[in-house]
Amino acid sequence: MTSELFAGTYSRGGAADAVTAEAWVRAMVDAEAALAAACVVEGLISPQAGASILEALRQGQLDVNAIAAEAGEHATPVIGLVRQLRDRVGEQYAEAVHLGATSQDIVDTAAMLVAQRALEVILADARAAGAAAERLAHTHRLTPMVGRTLLQQALPTSFGLVAAGWMVGLGRAVAELERVREQVLAVQMGGPVGARSPQIAARVAATLGLAEPLLPWHTERTRPAALAAGLGALAGVAGKVARDVCLLAQTELGELREGGEGRGGSSAMAHKRNPVAAVSVLACSRRTPALVATMFAAMEQEQQRAAGAWQTEWGTLTELLTLTGSAVAWLADLLGHLQVDVERMQENLDLLAQSGVQAAASPERRLADAAELVDRALAGVDR
Amino acid sequence: MTSELFAGTYSRGGAADAVTAEAWVRAMVDAEAALAAACVVEGLISPQAGASILEALRQGQLDVNAIAAEAGEHATPVIGLVRQLRDRVGEQYAEAVHLGATSQDIVDTAAMLVAQRALEVILADARAAGAAAERLAHTHRLTPMVGRTLLQQALPTSFGLVAAGWMVGLGRAVAELERVREQVLAVQMGGPVGARSPQIAARVAATLGLAEPLLPWHTERTRPAALAAGLGALAGVAGKVARDVCLLAQTELGELREGGEGRGGSSAMAHKRNPVAAVSVLACSRRTPALVATMFAAMEQEQQRAAGAWQTEWGTLTELLTLTGSAVAWLADLLGHLQVDVERMQENLDLLAQSGVQAAASPERRLADAAELVDRALAGVDR
Amino acid sequence: MTSELFAGTYSRGGAADAVTAEAWVRAMVDAEAALAAACVVEGLISPQAGASILEALRQGQLDVNAIAAEAGEHATPVIGLVRQLRDRVGEQYAEAVHLGATSQDIVDTAAMLVAQRALEVILADARAAGAAAERLAHTHRLTPMVGRTLLQQALPTSFGLVAAGWMVGLGRAVAELERVREQVLAVQMGGPVGARSPQIAARVAATLGLAEPLLPWHTERTRPAALAAGLGALAGVAGKVARDVCLLAQTELGELREGGEGRGGSSAMAHKRNPVAAVSVLACSRRTPALVATMFAAMEQEQQRAAGAWQTEWGTLTELLTLTGSAVAWLADLLGHLQVDVERMQENLDLLAQSGVQAAASPERRLADAAELVDRALAGVDR
Amino acid sequence: MTSELFAGTYSRGGAADAVTAEAWVRAMVDAEAALAAACVVEGLISPQAGASILEALRQGQLDVNAIAAEAGEHATPVIGLVRQLRDRVGEQYAEAVHLGATSQDIVDTAAMLVAQRALEVILADARAAGAAAERLAHTHRLTPMVGRTLLQQALPTSFGLVAAGWMVGLGRAVAELERVREQVLAVQMGGPVGARSPQIAARVAATLGLAEPLLPWHTERTRPAALAAGLGALAGVAGKVARDVCLLAQTELGELREGGEGRGGSSAMAHKRNPVAAVSVLACSRRTPALVATMFAAMEQEQQRAAGAWQTEWGTLTELLTLTGSAVAWLADLLGHLQVDVERMQENLDLLAQSGVQAAASPERRLADAAELVDRALAGVDR
Repeated sequence: MTSELFAGTYSRGGAADAVTAEAWVRAMVDAEAALAAACVVEGLISPQAGASILEALRQGQLDVNAIAAEAGEHATPVIGLVRQLRDRVGEQYAEAVHLGATSQDIVDTAAMLVAQRALEVILADARAAGAAAERLAHTHRLTPMVGRTLLQQALPTSFGLVAAGWMVGLGRAVAELERVREQVLAVQMGGPVGARSPQIAARVAATLGLAEPLLPWHTERTRPAALAAGLGALAGVAGKVARDVCLLAQTELGELREGGEGRGGSSAMAHKRNPVAAVSVLACSRRTPALVATMFAAMEQEQQRAAGAWQTEWGTLTELLTLTGSAVAWLADLLGHLQVDVERMQENLDLLAQSGVQAAASPERRLADAAELVDRALAGVDR
Repeated sequence: MTSELFAGTYSRGGAADAVTAEAWVRAMVDAEAALAAACVVEGLISPQAGASILEALRQGQLDVNAIAAEAGEHATPVIGLVRQLRDRVGEQYAEAVHLGATSQDIVDTAAMLVAQRALEVILADARAAGAAAERLAHTHRLTPMVGRTLLQQALPTSFGLVAAGWMVGLGRAVAELERVREQVLAVQMGGPVGARSPQIAARVAATLGLAEPLLPWHTERTRPAALAAGLGALAGVAGKVARDVCLLAQTELGELREGGEGRGGSSAMAHKRNPVAAVSVLACSRRTPALVATMFAAMEQEQQRAAGAWQTEWGTLTELLTLTGSAVAWLADLLGHLQVDVERMQENLDLLAQSGVQAAASPERRLADAAELVDRALAGVDR
Repeated sequence: MTSELFAGTYSRGGAADAVTAEAWVRAMVDAEAALAAACVVEGLISPQAGASILEALRQGQLDVNAIAAEAGEHATPVIGLVRQLRDRVGEQYAEAVHLGATSQDIVDTAAMLVAQRALEVILADARAAGAAAERLAHTHRLTPMVGRTLLQQALPTSFGLVAAGWMVGLGRAVAELERVREQVLAVQMGGPVGARSPQIAARVAATLGLAEPLLPWHTERTRPAALAAGLGALAGVAGKVARDVCLLAQTELGELREGGEGRGGSSAMAHKRNPVAAVSVLACSRRTPALVATMFAAMEQEQQRAAGAWQTEWGTLTELLTLTGSAVAWLADLLGHLQVDVERMQENLDLLAQSGVQAAASPERRLADAAELVDRALAGVDR
Repeated sequence: MTSELFAGTYSRGGAADAVTAEAWVRAMVDAEAALAAACVVEGLISPQAGASILEALRQGQLDVNAIAAEAGEHATPVIGLVRQLRDRVGEQYAEAVHLGATSQDIVDTAAMLVAQRALEVILADARAAGAAAERLAHTHRLTPMVGRTLLQQALPTSFGLVAAGWMVGLGRAVAELERVREQVLAVQMGGPVGARSPQIAARVAATLGLAEPLLPWHTERTRPAALAAGLGALAGVAGKVARDVCLLAQTELGELREGGEGRGGSSAMAHKRNPVAAVSVLACSRRTPALVATMFAAMEQEQQRAAGAWQTEWGTLTELLTLTGSAVAWLADLLGHLQVDVERMQENLDLLAQSGVQAAASPERRLADAAELVDRALAGVDR
């Protein structure tokens, strides 16, 4: 919905492609296919009906525009989807399509599949950013710089330790999203009021590589909330790193500088080199906390299907996947091309000495402590 | 960015069309044109240069895709825009294009124009919803119903008064957005660091029908915040009305029912009539408070141009305009086709009497009081 | 509710005192007194009953703890309040107390009075901050400094213009809150289901200096939302100023420095001078956007009294008043003692020249333009 | 900070007591004590110094008011704390107090301890609510009721399955917070710029029962974010349950009713029985999503200590613990006293039959399916 004019900023990387209308429809189709297969095994529909449905789905992509056009009128995209599927299988097997399922079964399962697929690219970019941070930590294990607290020079540290801190943050956020992917993303197959016998859900879960829930979770929304929180945390870490880069790239500090070809020009000031990647990370990451809040507020879902709260999730989750993905895609680029000015780091550190600070421990001792921490972090993440 | 699959829910009405990439580019072009005209009058560029620029802008639409493609690399869409404009005017007048302006001048002015144009359709739909509420208030001025507090039956009121309350809420939100449109939406022409002499801004403001600010507001963001708050308030009122309709349309209450052809079917339950329009209002309105928060959080903009906060506004404002517009478009539809079951209202009111409530005042007196309030509201809004 | 350990940060200035339990009870008492007086004039209760009630209220403060203790059990503090008032007036006039009113009438009216009184101190501190900014703008009208965009040196400006920008932002936020105070803060006297004849509300409004609404607004919440937005905008402006100070006070920039005695020490680093006031502004201001969102989300209030949404407002509004008040109290202190290092400003500006920037206009011309804007702003705000 | 007038609503249960100023100071003292002990073992201070410090801490509570009074001036409560400790140990061992630590080490470690202790009571209340839901699920395993989707009657289900859904949601939220408590709550002992050798942190972690982090996390804030998300999820589940109760307790539905003595009276309507506990859950739970957002937004922390973002966490986390605790305390009460009207459930279900619905499966089959799910859930949670 966001104007495509800003897609370069907000939709970098592959996550945006994983949440398109086509991607959603593909996921819904996968859900219906897995349902049909499960119904065959459970004896709810005949093998012929099942084969006919799978054949229909193989006939090529459905008409996404038609599904979308109808989705608004029903506040669900499933009505149009099912109609197209039934048209394809013909009258004989029409009833076997979508058997015993409700719209929310398909949309929720599809949302989990969409998230699963988007996470693949998001995690890849996040790991790439983490690997770049790891290289910086390794390379600058003994590069002294001044540590700054409340934006004031404080005491010496190393750039390697700063980069190791970025790496650990990214690593923790990645690990949490991996946990979400494995344990939280679950199938939904509860039927109209969540009372469907669980065998179907178990089979569909196995087919799709999603977790099997204890009960249908139509209005028990800890899963979408945990997914949102995991995404928000990754975006938050990305924002922290980008903020550091922005600050260390200030003209007067000059310790870091964005690399990358032909980027960062100004429409009015030719001499400027803007920290475009870092700013773009922030443009994305700062939009995420509010989206997380919307997902948490949407947990209050009425009775057996919500009137409003559930329907806010679709667009919010789509945005959250896209923006988090864009943030880490920008970040991977940023850290992959980061230019470190070791001399400026030393010059700025010299200011601290001139201010008369006598560090309790000697600079060498501090640098050794920092290096010990860097090594520990590098080892810990390798584990 | 939100998947187009859900556009029917989130992008109903004309606001979405007013915030497309094309609409943004059109607004940026309008800003550059007004700037060129102002520069001619102020003697900063020659009449020939000005004529050449305006001629170039008349040559047909710019290549929006090319602008978008470049926008990400610079974290601003203005670089690509200016390049295209300069190519069109040729070397001789290239420097006269965008003279003395900075990217943010064009983007902020364009954002205000986009908002101005989107508000036109948003306000039209909001007024249509208000007019429908007014008709309901008038028609049901003496229709008794039970008033409910904390979802419990409380005391008698009239449906006319309920509808009058909706009308007043919509009227107040509309009035606030009209104030925002007239006084808050302002031109931005401060130059690279906000120190440009104000004559240019005054002339551009007059051309574009935007307010003239006391100072450039590159990092003084009360204006975007006020716009966001105005939109959020309208969405909030829409949500309140939709919530009431959902509740009064419950099977067990049955006092209201959505009209509209062929809407509200269920993929699993043929007997159901879902309150699709009301749910769709809520699907939109509940996404807005968080977007308002993002706009307020983005007020903390550094120095003479922000590194991150400003850039979060573009997509957030676009979403906020679209979702608020969609909420009121759905609401106008909802209230325009609302079916009122006067008998069910009376039956439910009878339950109250059976519960032994002896209203302090007689039912007639209460209905007369309510009617007095309805008349007052109808008169007050006509004013 | 926030631990008092952090009250020095979050509750500076007088706003916190204006929102205590005692202040809320005082406001509720004022509402009941105004109601009793109105009922006498309208002939609903006898002059003797009215006199008895006013006399009871003059007998000294009510037992706030008892009211609070009972408030939780009823999800409203009015039950306990009315009981105490009725005990004081005695059986004869007990029924005359709170006549025709509902809990929400008293709580909403009290909330508006609490806001009105808190705004008095908040606006005083905001104006003090604005006056300090004005002095800085005046004093430094011709003090050159480098303008920075995206945290990079860009082109010359003056510190006077920077301070004038702060002043204008504060002035706009103050003007908006003054508008809210005059037009938005309104009496609530609608009776149990909002159907009470409006004469009582008109009289109570006149007594209390609150606006008279067209209709009861029990579930039409544009007023609390507008109040929240006004507060959030002021906090947002305060945050912007504090952010600028933090950045300009960085060791490597050194252009600004917080004054104030004995503040800003570090538990571990004796040489440091932390920007405590600026950080404290931010500690408060950054908590406000989410509170604004909660107030906007709470606009969706059901039927004639909300089950949940209304009840979220009380604490949220209290926090918002306190935090915004604290932010501007800190800001007034910060700007009132700000130390400006004109030499460092010049040194940093010299870096720009060394980077080979040839400003399109001469530095003198830029400074003159900036001064023209400063004068304009000073004149505009004086108006 | 929230007015104590509303403490009965917002601060029910024991969590509020676990986050008072005294509780925070106690936690800070525990952190300093553990640090001193660790310094003795590591040979950084003498056993005598260590003994003197522990003795000083045993001398009785510190002057909390004095610490609080000083906290604002330094934007940290540690300065005043350390001064009092040093005064107590005397000049000889003064330097041994707080050795090598920075303010944030103590505040962050204390925040984790405060959270750990508050979680104890929060989890107890959440488990009590879950146990009550479990009893309802067991008791009403075969109680038929109508399932409702989009607030419309849909198809039959059982109240046991509804209650089992509540139980599972609570169970999942509890399990996540247990994970947070075990794995996420960690010690902070990084020294002024996060470069302290990790041995001290390891020893302090062991003493305090907190996790040992790979690196100091002064500005790597995945931990506070995960804590916030866990709390927000629990509050979200509580809100869902409360919403269901509110809806099912509507006069026209009448399936559920709050128990509890003398609660729920109305100041104006004696016949009403308000769902006070459910409304109070919502009054708390709906304030939490925005607080979660503030915690996520605060992840963007600069360099080695943040200027503003960190300082927003203190109050926000305190509120989040209090409100979540209050929500589940109210919920445990609500579910512990819930009155179920089996006859009204059947009557409402009969409406569905009258509407001509022919459920695909027979009611018996549906009830059996629902019972199978209830049994599965009861078994799953017992595991």
